[in-house]
Formats: sequence, C-alpha cells, structure tokens
Amino acid sequence: MPTTTNYAFDTDTASTPVGPHEFELELSDRWNTMGGTANGGYLIAICLQALRAELPHPDVLSASAHYLRPGTNGPARIRTDLARIGRRTATGQAILTRDDREIIRVLATFTDLSKATGQTVVRNTPPELPAPDDCVNPLRGITPSPATIAERVEFRMPQIPGYWRGTPGGTSAAEFWMRFADGRNADPLALALLVDAAMPVVFDLGVPGSSTIELTVHIRRRPAPGWLACRVTTNYLIDGFHEEDFEIWDSTGTLVAQSRQLALIP
Amino acid sequence: MPTTTNYAFDTDTASTPVGPHEFELELSDRWNTMGGTANGGYLIAICLQALRAELPHPDVLSASAHYLRPGTNGPARIRTDLARIGRRTATGQAILTRDDREIIRVLATFTDLSKATGQTVVRNTPPELPAPDDCVNPLRGITPSPATIAERVEFRMPQIPGYWRGTPGGTSAAEFWMRFADGRNADPLALALLVDAAMPVVFDLGVPGSSTIELTVHIRRRPAPGWLACRVTTNYLIDGFHEEDFEIWDSTGTLVAQSRQLALIP
Repeated sequence: MPTTTNYAFDTDTASTPVGPHEFELELSDRWNTMGGTANGGYLIAICLQALRAELPHPDVLSASAHYLRPGTNGPARIRTDLARIGRRTATGQAILTRDDREIIRVLATFTDLSKATGQTVVRNTPPELPAPDDCVNPLRGITPSPATIAERVEFRMPQIPGYWRGTPGGTSAAEFWMRFADGRNADPLALALLVDAAMPVVFDLGVPGSSTIELTVHIRRRPAPGWLACRVTTNYLIDGFHEEDFEIWDSTGTLVAQSRQLALIP
Repeated sequence: MPTTTNYAFDTDTASTPVGPHEFELELSDRWNTMGGTANGGYLIAICLQALRAELPHPDVLSASAHYLRPGTNGPARIRTDLARIGRRTATGQAILTRDDREIIRVLATFTDLSKATGQTVVRNTPPELPAPDDCVNPLRGITPSPATIAERVEFRMPQIPGYWRGTPGGTSAAEFWMRFADGRNADPLALALLVDAAMPVVFDLGVPGSSTIELTVHIRRRPAPGWLACRVTTNYLIDGFHEEDFEIWDSTGTLVAQSRQLALIP
C-alpha cells in the first residue's frame, strides 16, 4: 500500500496489492541514472518493500538481485513467492516486470535484527573522513541530467575525486559521506538502495559505463540516524567484468551494510 | 543426464531430467560436512549443473544461493525456470527440494567466459604461498568423521592454523592451496563448490559452528589446471552474523573466483 510519508524513498518504493502475491506500481523517474533508466538500488528496494509486506520479520538481512533488463520508467508489476517462513528468518522472491518482461529478480532473507544477540568481533575500522561540514558537496546541488537520483541522494567528500569531475584519476577506491537529500534517515531497506546510489568507482579508470549483472547486499545492523560513511572498492576489472564492494557505516561508527556487485563495462 | 566421467564431482552433481524443468538426483553422502549433511557448495553445484543444461551459455558467471534447510542425504528434486535468455548472458533459477521442502534456491547468470574481451586492471596479488610440496596437508589423509568432504577436497598449508587443530588462534584470515583429491581439475562450475569447501575461518575465533544463510559466487575466468591458491577473510562478526570472503586464484596467478557468504553462528 502507498505509505503516508512524504519522503521520496517511501513514496516511490510503495506498490499496491492487486491479487495474491501481485503488486502494481509506477517505476518513478526520480531515481534515474545517467543512462536515463531507474537506478539498480531503487529497483531492489521496490522488490523488498513488496516482499516485506508478506514476511513476518521486519528487517531485510540479505538480498541478491540479478539484473535482466533496464528499468524504464512507467507502470510495472511485482510477483512474489515465499520459499520458507522460519521462526528466525524468512526467505522469499520478487520478480519485477514491465510489459511481462522481467527487469530484475530478487531473492531475499528477512530477520528481526533487534533480536540478534550473538558475538561481535570487528576486524576493520570505519572510513576516516573529516566531518561532513568540513567536506565538499561534489555536485554542488547541480543535477547532471538525466541523473535525477542526484536530487535524491547527497554526498560529502574530502575532495572531489577525478571521476566525479570527468577527469579519471586511475584509483579504484573511495570514501565519502552519503544521505537522503530530503532528510529521511536510512533503515535496512533504504540501505539496500544506498549501496548502489553512488557513481561506480571504476569510472576513475576511465571506462565509459558499467551495467550491474548481480548485486547482493547484507544488512548487518539497523542504522542510527544521520550521515552514513561509505567505503567503495573495485580490486578486479577482468576482461570487462568488475566487482564493486560497498560498505556503509552509520554515524556511531558501526558497519550497517555490506554489498558486492558484479558489473560489466559496455 | 549422468556424466560419463568417474570423478566424484561429476557423478555426484549430475541429475536426470524427468519432465519439463524437472530433475531428479540422489543427494550424495560423499560431500558431507561435520554437521552430517551436504556441503553448501555441493548443493549450489548440483543446481548449477541442472541449470546449465537449459541455458545456451557454457560458464556460470554469477550465482546467488539462499539456504533454507539442511541438505540431508537421499532422493531430491530440482525445478528450474528461466528468467531471460540473452545473446551475451542468460539467467535462470533452480530450486532443490527434498520431500517437497526447499533446501536451497539459486539464481544464476551464465555467459561464455572465453568471449569476454574487455579491459583488465587488477589491484591485488595472489596469495603468497610456498609451493604445495613445501606445505603441509592439514588433514594428513584422515577424514574427520562425519565430514566426508575431506576425502573429496585436499589442502596444503604453510602451517596448520589453530582452527584446523581444534585450538583457535584468534585470526580471521587464511591462505592455502586446494584441489579435488581425485585429480579432477576445476572448471567454473566446480569453483562454485570449492569456494565453500574449506572450514569456515571464523572457527579460529572459537565459535561452535556456522550456518550459511546466503552465498554468492562470481566466476572471473576459466581456471587453468592444477592447484588453486585460496584467500579467505572474515572482517565482521556482528551479533552472531558474519560474512566470509573467499578468493580462488589458479596456478597461473589469475583470480578465477570470488565469493561472499553471510552466515550465522548458532
């Protein structure tokens, strides 16, 4: 059901049940990338939003998406099915279609993260970044048309990396702050969008583009409110295929999301 | 169709078509873990083997599996469906069931890796290991009952890590050699098993066990014959959940597979 918040994320990921395990929605043009089609993280979030309505556990824990066709804007449908409902976790699937053609297929496992009480051993540290106010806004409020997602998500960076200025610097790693531009705080479902919301760091190698084939995101904790510190790395561009690893740490210095995608340079 | 090789991997991952998108097989007891049920990598390989028969491209590129129930040995069925068949990639799904209950659900994209000709930039190096003959066999040919997988896959290590000796050392990373014990060389499909064939490195923290929730593997190149150099890392054990990142490099020093799993300490 459409939500009652006015935040773009909630409005644009909501769908309407139209039958058993069937949902309808409009693929919004407010989350488009430079390619002029919907951002991949937005497509996952839509699927997870529908699936969450059917599963007993509130938090997405792990979601795997295979990308099949570009997400052109307009009317779309979601079909879900449930694989297993357990006491601690539940797993289901969502298929997003336009004109009966599959855009994305998502397998996801949900849990209640507030009930996770096992051991914690962390062998890494959050990104070391100056405070957001001491960083620069790489887009300075300008939307690089047609990438409307740049109006939805904002960034703060110690300095603007070459690949954000159109002059690739040859790196393949970056750290920066991120948040929704309209003030909505992140929750587990929003993190599934945000791990795919930044420009691919492989652009710093001067490649012309990158199409996601698969993306898996694991939500490690419910995030605290505020800016999110991000770390992105591509270690292996091989024969045109590359992974991108993305970490999101919340304002308390806790790792809250970890994703890896496999993508192809056209 | 059952294969004609005598290698355990081929024999035990083969299934028999029994109808449209329906396959039957016996979940072998030759790939069991210490839990006495089938290894998770073996379960993926079974699903991919069935799916490959239905897709036009020969190499698994990316496979995502959600684990639903333990893989007890005995008769099982696989149901496949195809999401999209493209010129360059094709995506399908396989669901493995026992007694109509889902054990594992796999989404996978296939391609022809020999036709991948894009740019290569590698920002990491293979594991630095002494030659396999200068390493030790941590199991010395002894099968730690009931882990029959220890008879199928063999390891060579610079020294035997604490967690292989039952005396955890507090690390969460390791590097070692791996191969099939019967001399079968790895191919992309076998790599999907092998990324999950070693003892979880998180055992070095003294945890009592680890159950995979989700595993995604990306195959980056067809592997050359011979020993495989492996690098495994767990950076984040949080509230009982941990990721495990696994890399496999072939005997020519090329990254051939990369996986991440999310697992739960019981």
